[in-house]
Amino acid sequence: KLMMSLQEVNPRVRGIRLSSQSGLHSLTENNTRDIIQGAPQSFKEQINISSGDPQRAGMKPISFVRQVLAVCLCPELLSDEHLPLDVRLRALRLLEACDGESVGSYTASSGLPHVRQTIAEFIMKRDEGVPAYAKNIFISSGAQRALMVIVKLLSGGEGRLQTGVLIPHPCPHGLLPLLDEAGVMAVPYRLIEEENWAVDLSELERALTTARGRCEPRAIYISNPGNPTGHLQDRESIEEVIEFVSTERLLLLVDEVYQDSVYAPNKEFISYKKVLFEMDEHLRDTVELVSFHSLSCACVAECGLRAGYMEAVNMDPGVMHFVDTMLCTDINAPVTGQLALDLMLSPPGPGDPSYNTFVHETLVTRATLAQNSQRALKLLNDLPGMSCRPAMGGIYLYPRLDLPAEIKEQANMLGLEAVVLYCQMLLEEEDLIVGAGDDGTSGSHYLRLCILVPPDTLEEVLSRLSSFHLRLSDRKLNRIV
Amino acid sequence: KLMMSLQEVNPRVRGIRLSSQSGLHSLTENNTRDIIQGAPQSFKEQINISSGDPQRAGMKPISFVRQVLAVCLCPELLSDEHLPLDVRLRALRLLEACDGESVGSYTASSGLPHVRQTIAEFIMKRDEGVPAYAKNIFISSGAQRALMVIVKLLSGGEGRLQTGVLIPHPCPHGLLPLLDEAGVMAVPYRLIEEENWAVDLSELERALTTARGRCEPRAIYISNPGNPTGHLQDRESIEEVIEFVSTERLLLLVDEVYQDSVYAPNKEFISYKKVLFEMDEHLRDTVELVSFHSLSCACVAECGLRAGYMEAVNMDPGVMHFVDTMLCTDINAPVTGQLALDLMLSPPGPGDPSYNTFVHETLVTRATLAQNSQRALKLLNDLPGMSCRPAMGGIYLYPRLDLPAEIKEQANMLGLEAVVLYCQMLLEEEDLIVGAGDDGTSGSHYLRLCILVPPDTLEEVLSRLSSFHLRLSDRKLNRIV
Ligand SMILES: Cc1ncc(COP(=O)(O)O)c(C=O)c1O
Ligand SMILES: Cc1ncc(COP(=O)(O)O)c(C=O)c1O
Repeated sequence: KLMMSLQEVNPRVRGIRLSSQSGLHSLTENNTRDIIQGAPQSFKEQINISSGDPQRAGMKPISFVRQVLAVCLCPELLSDEHLPLDVRLRALRLLEACDGESVGSYTASSGLPHVRQTIAEFIMKRDEGVPAYAKNIFISSGAQRALMVIVKLLSGGEGRLQTGVLIPHPCPHGLLPLLDEAGVMAVPYRLIEEENWAVDLSELERALTTARGRCEPRAIYISNPGNPTGHLQDRESIEEVIEFVSTERLLLLVDEVYQDSVYAPNKEFISYKKVLFEMDEHLRDTVELVSFHSLSCACVAECGLRAGYMEAVNMDPGVMHFVDTMLCTDINAPVTGQLALDLMLSPPGPGDPSYNTFVHETLVTRATLAQNSQRALKLLNDLPGMSCRPAMGGIYLYPRLDLPAEIKEQANMLGLEAVVLYCQMLLEEEDLIVGAGDDGTSGSHYLRLCILVPPDTLEEVLSRLSSFHLRLSDRKLNRIV
Repeated sequence: KLMMSLQEVNPRVRGIRLSSQSGLHSLTENNTRDIIQGAPQSFKEQINISSGDPQRAGMKPISFVRQVLAVCLCPELLSDEHLPLDVRLRALRLLEACDGESVGSYTASSGLPHVRQTIAEFIMKRDEGVPAYAKNIFISSGAQRALMVIVKLLSGGEGRLQTGVLIPHPCPHGLLPLLDEAGVMAVPYRLIEEENWAVDLSELERALTTARGRCEPRAIYISNPGNPTGHLQDRESIEEVIEFVSTERLLLLVDEVYQDSVYAPNKEFISYKKVLFEMDEHLRDTVELVSFHSLSCACVAECGLRAGYMEAVNMDPGVMHFVDTMLCTDINAPVTGQLALDLMLSPPGPGDPSYNTFVHETLVTRATLAQNSQRALKLLNDLPGMSCRPAMGGIYLYPRLDLPAEIKEQANMLGLEAVVLYCQMLLEEEDLIVGAGDDGTSGSHYLRLCILVPPDTLEEVLSRLSSFHLRLSDRKLNRIV
């Protein structure tokens, strides 16, 4: 008998439902292993657009961020005159903000005070003067981790007293495992596909009402701009949500990691915090809000460096103390990531030597995102049995898939979701990995596509997806005939 | 009423007992704030040796590690001929190991396959041929985080069925909060001060016996070389522990983060794994062991980059699956940290351009550590009411302190532990932060001193500590007279 046997693993951990995506991932690894072990090498180069990982797909990093980090890691580069002067000066300032003037030292568990201050100033500027304070900002090893900290604070209770959190359906694919691990019940509210995936007040009310009695709903999670829907809430929609949480006494958790990537014409990101501060005093002073942001956002997209932050608004200082306590077990977010946050939120300004390059790189990313979205939308909607709502921001498209009955039967026999089978076949036949959408209770199926990739990669993706999809429809016909 | 009030915070989170150290930390911050707000500036420069953070204290990083990371972050440096050729070639190889050839991409949640392979090869070489496999190695955001993952897997049960873990007393200061957060009961076994803090079999048996009935002891945690004791276990002691865990069916968790820093003459680090594989077959095939290592070790000491790993030996593959699941919620360890692990465990070899510098830097660190330990030991033992056991490895000394009765009374009145009051006075009077040791049930008190600091910093530390300590003894005399 093993000392630590499977049966004895913490039941809560055993209960974590990884997304259907992860099945696909292990398939990928097996595939790779086959290649290595001498299976036919005729595969195309694999492309993976299943998750938001722009640099994996070939998007370029922001030079200023990378150059400053290189100098911080290797201060002998401070005297390298090939590097722009503002890069070296900034590195010097950031090193001074680190203990021992080194990125190799631990920091306070909520992050470097200097970076927290930069974040506060960024927020205040973004929100046109709404005050923001460093003490309310907590840096963590990514937005996902920050969210986990809050969810763990909320978690507790058993049975009908178990904490519940309202979450959108569809939702970011890391969300359900996170709630499972924290021991919190997920209470889904449907986003309205017909309205391009808008948040709908009556749906929130319905979800809350059905949840009460089954659990103790204590918070609502919003993703805006939406992952994976690409929806952007307008001021009215945000106001509705704020009034709802105030009436229902819910903590408001807003994942705003794609705030830098609104690309629809005449649309603009407004933060929940700004809207809140322009509402009635009784709301402004009482609604408890936590907003999340991350290095893994669209334009900087430094997913691998692992840093993010949250800002708490109207939160009890005693509760914030426990936020800090929770962050203590992680010790601190990686210093390179913390410094990258500083660079992302306080980039070069006009006149700085790095300014033109920075502006150019950022513009290219934004333009790519907007064009890719247009281009993919058109092509997806031209395919039979595929339809996609236009997106306004974020880095995903979420097309609906009407699958042939045969695929569904075959999936059933294999014990797979139909859309997962579709994705596996796509992988095997075209070396293309896309995300399998949330399982539709309605019998409809969706794909999750990250569209922040270089334009020629997108062309290749669309061409592989179309050939496969059309072949699949033909095959169905063949067999029926 | 707040939506998220203090009373409603998850009771388990509220129950996390931060070490007395953290009180000191907030004192430090207040102190700093005073300085900024224009309080008298006559303070000495603050020195903090309370935790293991060598670079904060002024120790230099390994140039090879930093140079390669700089190139990985900023690949334009690949053509910078000021950087050694092996640095640039290594960076190229590491970039090829990253998705999209960028440190900005996510990795698998257990880490980059290339780095896991490097780790396996390092272990095999260290253990003179005992096999090690990449699939049993999990990279995480530091050793602390890796330990948390395992402890969470073990955790569960209530009351007498609550999982218990045997831990040393004294222990690393992050350990108790970690167990609290995981909901696991700490079962202390005393290390034997008279034997220079050796692990004692009868103490393990006593601890286990008293624990049974109060909880369900399922694992034992060992720190070797010991934090904060500096003790190094020899082969016999390790064999005893292995036989104990085998008989008692405990999972063996060995924190070997200071394996690179054994400095006592004629002493050498032997890993638990190597000893296990040289024991009886029935032990070799059945004892479940997890060993932890970290970038935050003595010689590389890249605490801020946040990476570590664990190797699981004889662990059920089904259980390892859940290790991976748990790591998923962190997404992945920071890529810069992962690459630094690769560099630490596979440094330049003879003939490589960076070899001489690397060897020199490593030797300087080791020599500093050995000399500092000698020097501090002598001085501490010369102080009245202070006595310190010699250390063989690690980066701490743990002197015992006989405190004047007056201090104890005063601390009592203030509601503080006596040793915490001592540390606070030391901070206020000498701007020196040392760690307060685990509270002695026996009425004895201890300090935790990180000795991996530049030699002249150590001199300054010892001089401040001596003056304060002698003043304190005098003061006592004055008042008594
Ligand atoms: C909505 C959303 N939140 C959080 C994250 C994760 O952010 P991080 O990498 O900072 O943990 C993502 C990443 O894709 C995301 O889409
Ligand atoms: C015994 C021990 N384990 C773990 C750690 C933490 O390691 P990491 O920084 O990799 O989380 C330390 C750091 O001081 C330590 O002393």
